[in-house]
Amino acid sequence: MGIIVWKVWRVLENAWHIGVADPRKVIHCIKVGLALSIVSLFYYMRPLYDDFGGNAMWAVMTVVVVFEYTVGATFYKCINRVIATFLAGALGVGIHLVAEQSGDQLKPIILGISVFLFASAATFSRFIPSVKARFDYGAMIFILTFSLVSVSGYRVVELFELAHMRLSTIAIGTSLCILVTMLFCPVWAGCELHHLIHQNMEKLADSLDGCVTEYFKENGSEEDLKKKMQGYKCVLNSKAAEESMANFARWEPTHGRFNFRHPWKQYLKIGASLRNCAYCIETLNSCISSEIQAPPCLRKHFSNKCMKASSYSINVLKELAITIMKMKKSSNIDIKVAEMNFAVEELVDALKSLPTTHFIATTTGEESTKAKAEGVEGSEHPSPIIKVLPLVKVVSLMVEIATRIGGVVNA
Amino acid sequence: MGIIVWKVWRVLENAWHIGVADPRKVIHCIKVGLALSIVSLFYYMRPLYDDFGGNAMWAVMTVVVVFEYTVGATFYKCINRVIATFLAGALGVGIHLVAEQSGDQLKPIILGISVFLFASAATFSRFIPSVKARFDYGAMIFILTFSLVSVSGYRVVELFELAHMRLSTIAIGTSLCILVTMLFCPVWAGCELHHLIHQNMEKLADSLDGCVTEYFKENGSEEDLKKKMQGYKCVLNSKAAEESMANFARWEPTHGRFNFRHPWKQYLKIGASLRNCAYCIETLNSCISSEIQAPPCLRKHFSNKCMKASSYSINVLKELAITIMKMKKSSNIDIKVAEMNFAVEELVDALKSLPTTHFIATTTGEESTKAKAEGVEGSEHPSPIIKVLPLVKVVSLMVEIATRIGGVVNA
Repeated sequence: MGIIVWKVWRVLENAWHIGVADPRKVIHCIKVGLALSIVSLFYYMRPLYDDFGGNAMWAVMTVVVVFEYTVGATFYKCINRVIATFLAGALGVGIHLVAEQSGDQLKPIILGISVFLFASAATFSRFIPSVKARFDYGAMIFILTFSLVSVSGYRVVELFELAHMRLSTIAIGTSLCILVTMLFCPVWAGCELHHLIHQNMEKLADSLDGCVTEYFKENGSEEDLKKKMQGYKCVLNSKAAEESMANFARWEPTHGRFNFRHPWKQYLKIGASLRNCAYCIETLNSCISSEIQAPPCLRKHFSNKCMKASSYSINVLKELAITIMKMKKSSNIDIKVAEMNFAVEELVDALKSLPTTHFIATTTGEESTKAKAEGVEGSEHPSPIIKVLPLVKVVSLMVEIATRIGGVVNA
Repeated sequence: MGIIVWKVWRVLENAWHIGVADPRKVIHCIKVGLALSIVSLFYYMRPLYDDFGGNAMWAVMTVVVVFEYTVGATFYKCINRVIATFLAGALGVGIHLVAEQSGDQLKPIILGISVFLFASAATFSRFIPSVKARFDYGAMIFILTFSLVSVSGYRVVELFELAHMRLSTIAIGTSLCILVTMLFCPVWAGCELHHLIHQNMEKLADSLDGCVTEYFKENGSEEDLKKKMQGYKCVLNSKAAEESMANFARWEPTHGRFNFRHPWKQYLKIGASLRNCAYCIETLNSCISSEIQAPPCLRKHFSNKCMKASSYSINVLKELAITIMKMKKSSNIDIKVAEMNFAVEELVDALKSLPTTHFIATTTGEESTKAKAEGVEGSEHPSPIIKVLPLVKVVSLMVEIATRIGGVVNA
């Protein structure tokens, strides 16, 4: 008993934190409640009830099923639901008419076979990636409506009236959903995607900063630096979120600074290049925690150049984040990219002119006090720079992509 | 017109390829059609129709909504649907009784407020990660049933009978789904997850092999090698699939070699460490295409040792894949891990004893015929080894995790 109370308490505590962290989620819940209460009103009003009868249930059902967190997702489901219901209804009625012509014996067979065929075909279409991305929900509703129409039609003669009622109740439900979702504190999938990309850029810059500082500093690391360094992990795992948001964003009408045909696919590209950078930072991070470390003298030798290169890269990333935020191509970006490239070249030159004497200077034991049974200690020195180099290169590559996008975004 | 025909043709061609690549998807479609046809039979049989009336619709609806590709997903939805319908129905009837006691004036107000409160609370619960993972669908059905019961109850007096009918039709639908999904070529989420992990391990081994071979060989690369090398990208992107499958696998009953309480979470851990390895291969891969290349003499010097280390790592990975497949701890695994560690040590030693004369031998221009405006050419030699090292280390780390899991999996 005590365990159950404690578990419930934990869940409630957890819920409270979620609510405090993102009040829009609480607002979303209130919106759902509101939409449902309004749709219930239709029911309570007797004249409407007399018109629609038991079919008013479909309005309630539509609201529950269709109402989603972002405007884009709601639109996607509404449009899919209406079109699929209409198509399936029309097809169902058509097949019904054909079946009616062929006599009472053949009718159930024709209906059964058509249900089997269309349900199988629609289910299969959900496996095709391009269909799944846009019409997954529609395919399901198509199967549902089609089988309901052909099955119920066996009994009910007034199919046309039924179809008309169902469509109008669904229309009431969907329009109510769209109104509520757009009028009260709307959450746009496009905006969310925009912010996510912007945030990911800043997180990446922070964790690059954190990693390089951590690597080149002598004393132990503080807690908040460690926390900062972990930012790139969010970037690694944000692929699914980005894709679903870009998917929903396509359905959204013009809002704020985003047009209907905003190039959402470009965001996915930026996201992919950010993830590429994150892979590099992951490797860099593993260098920090690795037992194989460069000797301190060498580290000091490169410290300045590396810090410079990384700080310029961070500048570029931050500038890009601002570009994304303002959706205007910044005039500074080219200068900053040039600065970064210059710093990287300097680093490479420094590497080339490294005095040979340093090379064999293995300093075993000094930093590897924690070295484990693997037997690899000290001795591998250029690792930090080599790790930073591809990183910086990827950043510069990303800059190329991103600046090109900068032009596209604010066309 | 021609464009539309062409597009439709493309989609059909695409669909054909999907069907050929995985016939189980086609079977799934047939299963859906079959389940729907069977449930339609209930409708066509007059005695049943007289019993259930319009409520038979719920059986059709349940089949359409609940039938999923894997057994686990179907179970998840069935159990969620039945429990949520029962709970919400009971709660709805209860609140109805209370509202009835308080007079005609207060009744709609009480009902409206309760719909608002419960709908908001259930919506909010869907944001809590632990609830979302297991009961997301249940929460939606709860809202749906609860609002339908409290709304329709305003008119219909025979609430109990209605609730009973709805529950029994849903029970018919769900049991039919479970039967069809389990009896005809079942697709178990657990098996799928198992195969995915196994496949990912082999892909990882292949692309490690491909990358290292590609790096150390003199002449140009063939097409199939390139294709092999790209295998790690699947591993990078399989996180979402793994998580949803592990989620569904928990709902599945005992089947084949998998028990009800099979440690599915361990699969997620293996998946995470595989992804860690894939990050390293990604970095290694970027070294291959990078313009900064080691001079050929150095490369040759390390070629043997590197190949040896990587081939031992590949052996370990393949052995692990077999372990996973057979679900039995292999006796060879410890030996292979020791071999791998030994090879890595040798590589490190070779690096330590590198003759200094090699160091400054920059061979600009030789390999960097494609070098671009970045100005970084030749000169950075140990990059391959350094890249292989953390890779090998991660592999050995993964081996530790995975051998431990090996014991757990076949408890």
